[in-house]
Amino acid sequence: MTVTFTDCANAIRALAMDAVEAANSGHPGMPMGMADVATVLFQDYLKFDPAAPYWADRDRFVLSAGHGSMLLYGLLHLTGYARPTLDDIKAFRQVGSPCAGHPENFELPGVEATTGPLGQGVAMAVGMALAERHLNAEFGDALVDHRTWAIAGDGCLMEGINHEAIGIAGHLKLGRLVVLWDDNRITIDGAVSLSSSEDIPARYAATGWHVVECDGHDPASIAAALDAAIADERPSLVRCRTIIGKGAPNFQGTSKTHGSPLGAAEVAAARETLGWHYPPFEVPEGIREAWLKAGTRGAAPHAAWKERLAAAPQGAELARRMAGDLPEGFSLDAHIADLLAAPQKVATRKASEMALVAINAGLPETVGGSADLTPSNNTLTKGLEDLTADNYGGRYIRYGIREFGMAAAMNGMALHGGVLPYGGTFLVFSDYARPAIRLSALQRARVVYVMTHDSIGLGEDGPTHQPIEHVMSLRLIPNLEVWRPCDAVETAEAWGAAVARKDGPALLALSRQNLPQLSPGGAAKGGYRLASAEAPRKVVLLASGSEVEVAVAVRAALEEQGIGADVVSMPCWSRFDAQPAAYKAELLPKDALRVSIEAGVTTGWERYTGDGLNFGVDVFGASGPYLGLYDQFGLTAAAIAPQILEKLK
Amino acid sequence: MTVTFTDCANAIRALAMDAVEAANSGHPGMPMGMADVATVLFQDYLKFDPAAPYWADRDRFVLSAGHGSMLLYGLLHLTGYARPTLDDIKAFRQVGSPCAGHPENFELPGVEATTGPLGQGVAMAVGMALAERHLNAEFGDALVDHRTWAIAGDGCLMEGINHEAIGIAGHLKLGRLVVLWDDNRITIDGAVSLSSSEDIPARYAATGWHVVECDGHDPASIAAALDAAIADERPSLVRCRTIIGKGAPNFQGTSKTHGSPLGAAEVAAARETLGWHYPPFEVPEGIREAWLKAGTRGAAPHAAWKERLAAAPQGAELARRMAGDLPEGFSLDAHIADLLAAPQKVATRKASEMALVAINAGLPETVGGSADLTPSNNTLTKGLEDLTADNYGGRYIRYGIREFGMAAAMNGMALHGGVLPYGGTFLVFSDYARPAIRLSALQRARVVYVMTHDSIGLGEDGPTHQPIEHVMSLRLIPNLEVWRPCDAVETAEAWGAAVARKDGPALLALSRQNLPQLSPGGAAKGGYRLASAEAPRKVVLLASGSEVEVAVAVRAALEEQGIGADVVSMPCWSRFDAQPAAYKAELLPKDALRVSIEAGVTTGWERYTGDGLNFGVDVFGASGPYLGLYDQFGLTAAAIAPQILEKLK
Repeated sequence: MTVTFTDCANAIRALAMDAVEAANSGHPGMPMGMADVATVLFQDYLKFDPAAPYWADRDRFVLSAGHGSMLLYGLLHLTGYARPTLDDIKAFRQVGSPCAGHPENFELPGVEATTGPLGQGVAMAVGMALAERHLNAEFGDALVDHRTWAIAGDGCLMEGINHEAIGIAGHLKLGRLVVLWDDNRITIDGAVSLSSSEDIPARYAATGWHVVECDGHDPASIAAALDAAIADERPSLVRCRTIIGKGAPNFQGTSKTHGSPLGAAEVAAARETLGWHYPPFEVPEGIREAWLKAGTRGAAPHAAWKERLAAAPQGAELARRMAGDLPEGFSLDAHIADLLAAPQKVATRKASEMALVAINAGLPETVGGSADLTPSNNTLTKGLEDLTADNYGGRYIRYGIREFGMAAAMNGMALHGGVLPYGGTFLVFSDYARPAIRLSALQRARVVYVMTHDSIGLGEDGPTHQPIEHVMSLRLIPNLEVWRPCDAVETAEAWGAAVARKDGPALLALSRQNLPQLSPGGAAKGGYRLASAEAPRKVVLLASGSEVEVAVAVRAALEEQGIGADVVSMPCWSRFDAQPAAYKAELLPKDALRVSIEAGVTTGWERYTGDGLNFGVDVFGASGPYLGLYDQFGLTAAAIAPQILEKLK
Repeated sequence: MTVTFTDCANAIRALAMDAVEAANSGHPGMPMGMADVATVLFQDYLKFDPAAPYWADRDRFVLSAGHGSMLLYGLLHLTGYARPTLDDIKAFRQVGSPCAGHPENFELPGVEATTGPLGQGVAMAVGMALAERHLNAEFGDALVDHRTWAIAGDGCLMEGINHEAIGIAGHLKLGRLVVLWDDNRITIDGAVSLSSSEDIPARYAATGWHVVECDGHDPASIAAALDAAIADERPSLVRCRTIIGKGAPNFQGTSKTHGSPLGAAEVAAARETLGWHYPPFEVPEGIREAWLKAGTRGAAPHAAWKERLAAAPQGAELARRMAGDLPEGFSLDAHIADLLAAPQKVATRKASEMALVAINAGLPETVGGSADLTPSNNTLTKGLEDLTADNYGGRYIRYGIREFGMAAAMNGMALHGGVLPYGGTFLVFSDYARPAIRLSALQRARVVYVMTHDSIGLGEDGPTHQPIEHVMSLRLIPNLEVWRPCDAVETAEAWGAAVARKDGPALLALSRQNLPQLSPGGAAKGGYRLASAEAPRKVVLLASGSEVEVAVAVRAALEEQGIGADVVSMPCWSRFDAQPAAYKAELLPKDALRVSIEAGVTTGWERYTGDGLNFGVDVFGASGPYLGLYDQFGLTAAAIAPQILEKLK
């Protein structure tokens, strides 16, 4: 058979509508609408090698409109990735299939990012494009020279994060980033015009982007637009005029095709319209061959790249970074030993900076930044240059007032590999970045969040800036390691654990106020005994961060009354929970009154204190100098010790 | 003395720098930079009456750049509001002063919104402007005819929410909204150009806004710009070119003036530069008089309005709505009685729609909407018309894919008064709106969040769309009532409580899947016994939402083994916590094994189960039909009952 472009695109369409039909759930409209654009991209532009999905110098492709997952599964399958198999696709959206409702990076090589939460795919693509330029600056064109492509829908562009993401990309002139906008004029509620009157190309142009338009169903028009995008030195938005659900004759162009199966009748009608006279899930051999051939385009460039890598003096270093391994011998032990030898009374945000001095010296892969709170977050160490459009080799990013965009960009950088991103804001604004923090955890991305001003201890800025529920609510996110260190030693230990962790993010909640150095070390276990009872033990005091100091003072007050009390520092709950049961039981004996002290909501601490006492802040904070607030909220030894004595009666 | 415009503006500057100096903390740069613009606005444009801060037809003014709080405190004080007094200002940022670090609506009349979390002030102003046009459509120009003004900094414009907010305003042509952009080209890290290259006026123009520019230190230029803004039918952005910290001769124009006291020397130098030869906090009588006079401009229009209100047939209705009182006799009792008479097996999202039919019929003040998930959230009841630029009287808003913008707009609408906003999205995307949900709670705003697809029960869409930590993390936000009803009856009760609540928001977590009707009613207490043990009670099963059905099945399995078990439904923790201790102790006796079942993280349930058992989902979800997922995560009677029996051994 003579295989045409349209045959190839229709194979994508058919797989999408058949898989959605079989699952009786899913989104056929987007894959059918963008099948032509994706076919041009994967057959003629994207640099990839299905035989080596993790080739470092591959182009990155992000399906930001993740609900169109069948588009991606079809592409990966047809171009020859080992997975998904046809059986995987037949099991689309079933328990155990790697073809999940939305694409997940940990399920399938070739899925570069987990998408579905709208807007974040484009923002991660910005991070990938950033990582590429950064690594290119160090390793050169021979080793790092690829593009980042994203397919985005109207939802991705309407979300607030789009503004932040394209602001970063435009400012940093990330010309190797191309966003393919599926301009189908349809959302779930109906026409885009129900909710938006925006001139999107004008907005992108205002933000420093190049914009080009094409007929998303005409391969020549698509190719011309991609050529123009590649030629322009700015990041490009390619407006692809498409018809959602193209090929479904009665439903196409409407929201009916967006998020539910077409139904047997419309699927049959679509087969007629498309001229696709094959049973469900069958791809005729000729079309399959054409697709597989497209999937072999990358083999030669990949082989040539491997030769260059082997020959390059920096090849081993690039390979190390891409593998996510730390340099041999890297450790913060010396820094911690220095602290133990000469204790420091500093805010943990300052302690974080001290740790970062050692980290940034020892780990050339770190790329730091802050959402415009550099002097407060203490994220910039001496000697780090700004990463700018004129200096991609810089290692510090001025993210602007863009917490969410920063977090998502860091996800993209971590997913790209080769860099270890960290970024700061105030802990209360973790809420702004929370959807991306969740995606760091879900995607198992090594991102380090430096969140300072972690409680009412920030003082005068008041309730809008005082985290109350934040530390606890972040602890609830699976696979996120939340650290709230009590001093410089624990802060260094937390940083050490964060950079060593290959399969997930860490978040450091750090104080604005100075804290005494109390810890002899031990934070890596998540919770440990920082001080032992002298009098017979009746009480175990649990605390984190700045309240460890309070717990130590409470302990002293109790001991004065002949009541023995341990202090257990709990810098990282998830690490503590992972300890052996015996360790935990020994630390938190049920025959002692267990008492938690933390300047945040108490709900959650009952996990460790049982029927004991919990001291915290269960209402919004207040504006005033912080010592006054600790008084007001009863977080002092003078307020707490008597209540413990009363409970012991 | 002859009082000049500059004298008046300098009074603002002096109060700001003196208050920050006295507090040794705060932000002098913005008040000093925007003093001239604010003086023109408050002396010649803003419609307000300090003697009646809650006058329904006043203009609304929102200081979106909330860190510049001293600008607002100075304006309120000088124009003659009862508070803040000069003593209040002297106690700026001290415990107990209403002059908090950031302006809080519950501290001072005249503070229309709590601001500081950047970007949200403008977005709330959009909601206020929307409420104004909506009420105008119903009550006419005689009763509702005012403007909304906001002062915003670069941070407000850089945040993602700005894109969503101006998209809504531009689409709805909210021409009575004017945003005054403090274009001082400075952020905390330094020059705006460090992080942004955006052409902001072009972006606003692309979104349907009118843009005008002025010299922010020239009153004639400012006035001309405000006149142009008023004359244009689109929402307006007024670009005010300013110098941050203007008047501080050595620091002005730099980030040094942004967020810390100027210091004694620079304050003294500023006094010289400004020609302000008065001691700290002293405002000379003539200047004080000029300001007070400006504050009396609104008295006559206010009096005339009151006459019109008294004469208008709809006057009492407007007054009722602005007071936030529900219509006399409004109740959902009949709807609940219908349900009890004829039980319904429906998803709680569908049950929510059924309740909304009664609510929207009985409460003309409701304005619903969804962030482009109308068919999924079931937020649109029959007969509601869309609120559009051509039909401001409509009661349903197509918010687009803008969860955060929707939530903040709803805050603005609730703060404006006269409307009762509700809006929907998927529960997992509460993360996108979380900063605004927090501000609903902090501001005590009656906003109802309709969050559907509330667990792994949503099935095939998979982990990106399955809330795991969300219900629990929302319970942690102070003053937010989180409801997770188990059936149609509890859903109606939750809705009844939500609309009756005047001092805070409610969030309803609703199922995608159908649920049997199990409740006899009782949800208003937050937790109640839904089924009592028949055999001698050894177990109390606690559950919420869709897992109440599971708990009922577990109970049956236990009773079959002769183990008596209560089922306690826990639809709203904060309400339950507010019950008398005896009630709670009776419901959760310590001599029974207490067991929680909820399709979400277990951390937190120990609060009620002590050393009992907690069944839930402590990892990310998976993609598949929901019954398969309940199996996979062990949330079935078959999986749970044996573990309880084992524990009882």
